[in-house]
Amino acid sequence: MEVKVYANVMKANDRIADQIRTLLDKYNIFAINFISSPGSGKTTLLESLIPHFISQNIRPAVLEGDLATSVDAERIKKLDIPVHQINTGSGCHLDANMIFHPIQDLPLDTIDLLLIENVGNLVCPTGFYLGENMKIAMVSVTEGDDKVLKYPLIFHVSEALILNKIDLIPYTNFNKDKFYQYCAQVNPKVKIFEINAVKGDGVNALVEWILERMKRTEPMRN
Amino acid sequence: MEVKVYANVMKANDRIADQIRTLLDKYNIFAINFISSPGSGKTTLLESLIPHFISQNIRPAVLEGDLATSVDAERIKKLDIPVHQINTGSGCHLDANMIFHPIQDLPLDTIDLLLIENVGNLVCPTGFYLGENMKIAMVSVTEGDDKVLKYPLIFHVSEALILNKIDLIPYTNFNKDKFYQYCAQVNPKVKIFEINAVKGDGVNALVEWILERMKRTEPMRN
Repeated sequence: MEVKVYANVMKANDRIADQIRTLLDKYNIFAINFISSPGSGKTTLLESLIPHFISQNIRPAVLEGDLATSVDAERIKKLDIPVHQINTGSGCHLDANMIFHPIQDLPLDTIDLLLIENVGNLVCPTGFYLGENMKIAMVSVTEGDDKVLKYPLIFHVSEALILNKIDLIPYTNFNKDKFYQYCAQVNPKVKIFEINAVKGDGVNALVEWILERMKRTEPMRN
Repeated sequence: MEVKVYANVMKANDRIADQIRTLLDKYNIFAINFISSPGSGKTTLLESLIPHFISQNIRPAVLEGDLATSVDAERIKKLDIPVHQINTGSGCHLDANMIFHPIQDLPLDTIDLLLIENVGNLVCPTGFYLGENMKIAMVSVTEGDDKVLKYPLIFHVSEALILNKIDLIPYTNFNKDKFYQYCAQVNPKVKIFEINAVKGDGVNALVEWILERMKRTEPMRN
């Protein structure tokens, strides 16, 4: 019985996600769902990416998912782009229903790129399609080189994997060879970007790749 | 309807957790449920703690929760104590049912302290009582100083909060004053330990505190 209810929940989620996709298509908006552990640097990455997109005449907007606080949305707000904070309470992921109304409250005709920062969680957000064009996963070197192996699901369904905080490698036991070996095992197709989101190192290559990917607008499903 | 099913699931979990508690009481075993994000350093902390307990004639055993691999259990196995790995597949937390049989497969009459390393996730494990005496939460400085605010639930129900990787503070923008201020806001009673699990700095104080806490054997419920 529990499985049946779960199936219904997923069906209900996908129905709303499809409506979101239709809405995004109508306004020609490309959407990215960013997923990582808490504190991997998702918000800092967005702060680093957004000025690049603006300088390329791509108009971004952001949805911020968190259990509590509007700390992240306030950081994004300073970049003077549309942003909504979604507080999930005890919810461990964003689902389509949570973002359905916030998306409609955005000025959709002034947006080219919707950046969705999911709740910090390397497990639960994986299964919930939000109508996005692609998922990008992120892991920071301070989390260790084995995260791809131990939390494989999200890395299966992500088109890109960002390795953040590379400046901290010298102070950790992170083994880059092992990391790439594990990535090849879990998802040989995933595109990997090494970055330092605080300083912006490596962000250019990621921006170029996203801009190229935006030309192929097909949505990706899990 | 979904709420009702969820309630039943929680009731079923608590019924099994109570059976686990009864079993642990029978063998006079104290149990700790360690909860953190992926890569905060739970396994490294256990590797650091275990020799201290052994030297104090406390006999530990470990249950390792992960989506996939037996990497963590293999690390603990080297310390020559009983350990079982529990792979949850896509499961985002341990529940009582998952550990019920693995616990019974441990040599219970040779164990004083059961260390349960939950799946790396700062949200979902919070609500699932496993029959433990207490929860200990962990956050590493590289995750940022705001995690307690943004993921408050786990910090409400934990007796101790470990701040790990304190040696990396100089290379990050972690603000210790803010961190303590946020902790005081969310749970003024929580006992905070600053440690470097890799080098063992600060672990002595944590061991002493756990040994004291073990004298008060009452189980803690959410």
